[in-house]
Amino acid sequence: MADDALFEFLHMEIVALVYKEQATREDIDKERVTCVSTLDAMGFRVGQGMIERFTKDCPTFKDDLDLMKFLCKDFWSTIFKKQIDNLRTNHQGTYVLQDNKFALLTQFSSGKQYLEEAPKYLAFSCGLIRGALSNLGLESVVTAEVSLMPSCKFQVVIQKL
Amino acid sequence: MADDALFEFLHMEIVALVYKEQATREDIDKERVTCVSTLDAMGFRVGQGMIERFTKDCPTFKDDLDLMKFLCKDFWSTIFKKQIDNLRTNHQGTYVLQDNKFALLTQFSSGKQYLEEAPKYLAFSCGLIRGALSNLGLESVVTAEVSLMPSCKFQVVIQKL
Repeated sequence: MADDALFEFLHMEIVALVYKEQATREDIDKERVTCVSTLDAMGFRVGQGMIERFTKDCPTFKDDLDLMKFLCKDFWSTIFKKQIDNLRTNHQGTYVLQDNKFALLTQFSSGKQYLEEAPKYLAFSCGLIRGALSNLGLESVVTAEVSLMPSCKFQVVIQKL
Repeated sequence: MADDALFEFLHMEIVALVYKEQATREDIDKERVTCVSTLDAMGFRVGQGMIERFTKDCPTFKDDLDLMKFLCKDFWSTIFKKQIDNLRTNHQGTYVLQDNKFALLTQFSSGKQYLEEAPKYLAFSCGLIRGALSNLGLESVVTAEVSLMPSCKFQVVIQKL
């Protein structure tokens, strides 16, 4: 359906814009950090907004794992049109969410050819997870890892306060 | 549904980003023009991409009016979750599309209070229409007008080649 494409196209435009704007600046290293954090911050705010709409009629979660399951199913399906394929946890606040066909990487050819381009296209989604969790009362550090496109792993480490 | 919200939140982020980036530059007037054209260009590319997916299994259109009707119904519904409320034409290449509750303006309080903020939130959608039409072989000039939020009129003038 054309419906899913809207988010994918918009996301591509955002990444292109952020990197284009920064390309005019001098310091290359600083540049890369700023781009990732700009995209991450955008994702964070979108994640906050989305989860708020999403959970307004929801029961509360019985524990963190219950909440993560909700994130992997309902939240992920709404945004990326599929569920997370695999959720693992060490039961000590670390979760690994694996998506075997991550929507924002499917425009690339599969395999390792464009692997170095991947981080650009994951920063927004890391922020999205962090924003959603934050609005549900969990501060976290979220990182992403790709070893073979279009599969992707998000690692979420809950910060104990 | 939370589904519609994703596009609205992303659009807000894009507008904020484009205006923030430009706020660091000197010339205020030039600034405003650049922001609008950046947003319009992003909309154009998204419109092109969307209409391509959308029309790949579609019959061809019998005339421009037929095409505009498709844009007002199917295309608009997919993106903005409602149809255009009113379509008028002078049968000489000018079309006026009126949306009485335009999705990207509903976050504002109704009325005239934030009227001067409106153009920022219409540039992307003007580009979207222009991009969609362009991919269907019609070059156009698209402008938008708001007199009372959240209602909005888009004027499309088809350019004869």
